[in-house]
Amino acid sequence: MKIIAIVSGGLDSVTLAHVLAKQGHEINCLSFDYGQRHKKELDFARTAGYDIGGYWDLIDLTGLTKHIGGSSLTDDIQVPDGHYTEENMKITVVPNRNAIMLSIAYGVAVARKADAVAIAVHAGDHFIYPDCRPEFISNFDAMQKKAIEGFGEVKLLAPFINYTKADIVKAGASAGVLFSKTWSCYKGADVHCGTCGTCVERKEAFELAGVKDVTMYLK
Amino acid sequence: MKIIAIVSGGLDSVTLAHVLAKQGHEINCLSFDYGQRHKKELDFARTAGYDIGGYWDLIDLTGLTKHIGGSSLTDDIQVPDGHYTEENMKITVVPNRNAIMLSIAYGVAVARKADAVAIAVHAGDHFIYPDCRPEFISNFDAMQKKAIEGFGEVKLLAPFINYTKADIVKAGASAGVLFSKTWSCYKGADVHCGTCGTCVERKEAFELAGVKDVTMYLK
Repeated sequence: MKIIAIVSGGLDSVTLAHVLAKQGHEINCLSFDYGQRHKKELDFARTAGYDIGGYWDLIDLTGLTKHIGGSSLTDDIQVPDGHYTEENMKITVVPNRNAIMLSIAYGVAVARKADAVAIAVHAGDHFIYPDCRPEFISNFDAMQKKAIEGFGEVKLLAPFINYTKADIVKAGASAGVLFSKTWSCYKGADVHCGTCGTCVERKEAFELAGVKDVTMYLK
Repeated sequence: MKIIAIVSGGLDSVTLAHVLAKQGHEINCLSFDYGQRHKKELDFARTAGYDIGGYWDLIDLTGLTKHIGGSSLTDDIQVPDGHYTEENMKITVVPNRNAIMLSIAYGVAVARKADAVAIAVHAGDHFIYPDCRPEFISNFDAMQKKAIEGFGEVKLLAPFINYTKADIVKAGASAGVLFSKTWSCYKGADVHCGTCGTCVERKEAFELAGVKDVTMYLK
């Protein structure tokens, strides 16, 4: 299949693209610049795109930023430290981000006659992010079937939907992913900070998976 | 209610915004620049935004254009003449446009704590555009309920869903819409061409509604 994979440059999405490529699919990586402060991850997304499918597209959504502000991922609000499942991490949500990215990815898929769109949502995010839950994915799929009826058939792939982040690390290790070529930290400095929500999660995932964590952390 | 209304500057969406405003709602008009050739309609959208709610936002999606090309609305393909329901008008579709615009409008609605998003899809477009049909709207609504669960409740309003374009003209006339402040033509010259699909539709709608058509047409 020809698959449009949404790749942020993070551990989950880069692993997703590698795993699908290893299964023999043609992968087109698609990334979004929505004015995130950790633009650094987009460099990792580009590397993944060229490593995996020889193809990478960046959609410029910075025109959206001032309209959907209020998130510490894009604004000047301080990124909170601590574990990801804490209430204060709700602030890191860009409203409706997955629906926006997926609907654009479907537009690209129809234009390029791709067979599927893939997204790396996983169980670890279900608690906080409604747009990472199975019910969102199944409803999005149903909506898209109606939206493009007669203009193509595009599957929605979310193979990690019931994976923990540790399961993703295991899947990535099996697929030969070089995790040093993935970026998680929300702070976007030279190395991972080791203390923000995603860094805490990342460390924990490697530990639980029993896979050596090659990431350089500040702390 | 506070409503984010998707307004292109065309007859349908400008009428929608006026009708909702007349019902006493607070209207924020939202338009999209997706590189359409008939940018002129955006001037009409801005006018409507300021006339109706004193508020207008333009979302720049031109970064998308090269990725979702293939439509005569954005590319250099010649805009076909003739009635809108003809097969060759399929070419005027930007893939997945309504899903993309609606998902962004929901992001804006959540950020601004609005109560609803409104779109002017109508029965005249059901035949060609799957993303104008009732099943698309109801599935989109269901998807969004899941997508933003816990982050707000936003209704999806599509009050013209079973209207013909003539019904919209009648509703607009009742709400006191100045139709000269709406733009339909896909060709984007100084005056409406009178021969492209939307011009043919526009003429017909006024005729069927029994409302005087004040539009200046080239032919």
